[in-house]
Amino acid sequence: MAATVEKAEAFRALHQGPRPLILPNAWDVPSARVFENAGFPAIATSSAGIMVSHGYPDGEEMPRRELLQAVARIAERVAVPVSADVVAGYGRTSRDIEKTIGLVIRSGAVGVNIEDLHPSHDGLVRLEVQLRRLDAVKRAAASSGIPLVINARTDAFRHAPGDEPARLREAIRRASAYRDAGADCVYPMGLTDAASITAFVEALRCPVNVMVREGLPPLAELERIGVRRVSFGPSASYAALGLLKRISREVLEQGSFDSLVRDAIGFAELNELAVARKSGSG
Amino acid sequence: MAATVEKAEAFRALHQGPRPLILPNAWDVPSARVFENAGFPAIATSSAGIMVSHGYPDGEEMPRRELLQAVARIAERVAVPVSADVVAGYGRTSRDIEKTIGLVIRSGAVGVNIEDLHPSHDGLVRLEVQLRRLDAVKRAAASSGIPLVINARTDAFRHAPGDEPARLREAIRRASAYRDAGADCVYPMGLTDAASITAFVEALRCPVNVMVREGLPPLAELERIGVRRVSFGPSASYAALGLLKRISREVLEQGSFDSLVRDAIGFAELNELAVARKSGSG
Repeated sequence: MAATVEKAEAFRALHQGPRPLILPNAWDVPSARVFENAGFPAIATSSAGIMVSHGYPDGEEMPRRELLQAVARIAERVAVPVSADVVAGYGRTSRDIEKTIGLVIRSGAVGVNIEDLHPSHDGLVRLEVQLRRLDAVKRAAASSGIPLVINARTDAFRHAPGDEPARLREAIRRASAYRDAGADCVYPMGLTDAASITAFVEALRCPVNVMVREGLPPLAELERIGVRRVSFGPSASYAALGLLKRISREVLEQGSFDSLVRDAIGFAELNELAVARKSGSG
Repeated sequence: MAATVEKAEAFRALHQGPRPLILPNAWDVPSARVFENAGFPAIATSSAGIMVSHGYPDGEEMPRRELLQAVARIAERVAVPVSADVVAGYGRTSRDIEKTIGLVIRSGAVGVNIEDLHPSHDGLVRLEVQLRRLDAVKRAAASSGIPLVINARTDAFRHAPGDEPARLREAIRRASAYRDAGADCVYPMGLTDAASITAFVEALRCPVNVMVREGLPPLAELERIGVRRVSFGPSASYAALGLLKRISREVLEQGSFDSLVRDAIGFAELNELAVARKSGSG
């Protein structure tokens, strides 16, 4: 328990470090272990990545228990802090949300992502409802004794009514409310251009998370703007599956196995990724 | 049931087609669906790939039920035949093996790989024991009514005593016995050079499976030699994890997200990989 409290505090401190925190999102044990071995100081989970790898579409169709079991498999095998994405929290009621957060903490994660998009993806949760949910997250964390790091995501920039400036204003309004409700970091989904990110960061003045996607400014510019956290989202899954498509084409069209064996890891390395790294081994 | 019988027969026929069967080994739903969409006529599972992705080393540490659940998730979501790798069959007794094969058939797979290496990887199972196991596989398949396609793997080329010619002779002796015991295909693990593969294929005169690895002759040469089945083994996992390592290095050392977003699939495509392809949609 003391170790978990310490891990949560270490994860929180990474949002205040000299450089932005780069957070790779994993979907299974070896993707997480590769990121850890490469030197990332913390790992997040990608809910889309985990769900699709188990045969569920993104959303909340994958049973909560099964999702958190997948998070636990990862958290048990990496030494660095893990932050769990739980979509909209699997809850209609505050009690449901508290239950979800209890499961997050039991999985070994010390951070959580919670979004304000309806899990059916048909619109935003009303602001006052989302604030009650964040209250429930805070309450569940407090009662567990783990200072859970809360990343509050708003989908207003993509899903609020109005033109782009209106949607940016709504994203700022919601994120400000989430910050005031105790979120440690806010996450405006869909912001990729430097101007909008700058406006958002200047308005919020708290740690802001942006997601890697085509067109995002390079890290040096994000740092200059004041972004504190850059997460991969599902992009590492996208890249890995893109590679499998290229491999398939090369095998089927050219009868060549070159891309399959080039720049690959080997059996011993794969096998080592299954087990937790010995503490202190690097 | 009739559809499954038909699928098993279609899979068996692929070993007698005009060209060698190329069998990509998947470890989760999206890897399997990418292979299916690319046009592979059947999919195998990689036991190492599945086990490591769940945080278990290769072998039989992952509970049998959990392994077969992972196979079922794949088999439920692809239309093409699926062949399941069950390592050494999870059995000390014939009854255990029959139980394993019953689970394989219930998972929706219509083919199975079974090897003669002790799951603790410390040597070969005695030939007469392995023949009893293959008998149990045949019995379980017969009692289910599904004409399961059996790929009998021998690890003699790597694990038998003696020099390379002696180990090749032992691999041929074992594979011949497995063929005579009713295996549909035999799989000499570790054979990668054209001369050994040729000697093996000429001695066996039944479908032979080789695994892709660095140094394997190109497909056209394997076809000329008479190889009937070429499987990826865990190599697609190796390649995907190799890419994640390169991405990590580029992000951490250069602050660039280029490899993460280049040649990647997108969200809609990822999400579609979770669900079974509509029958007849191409």
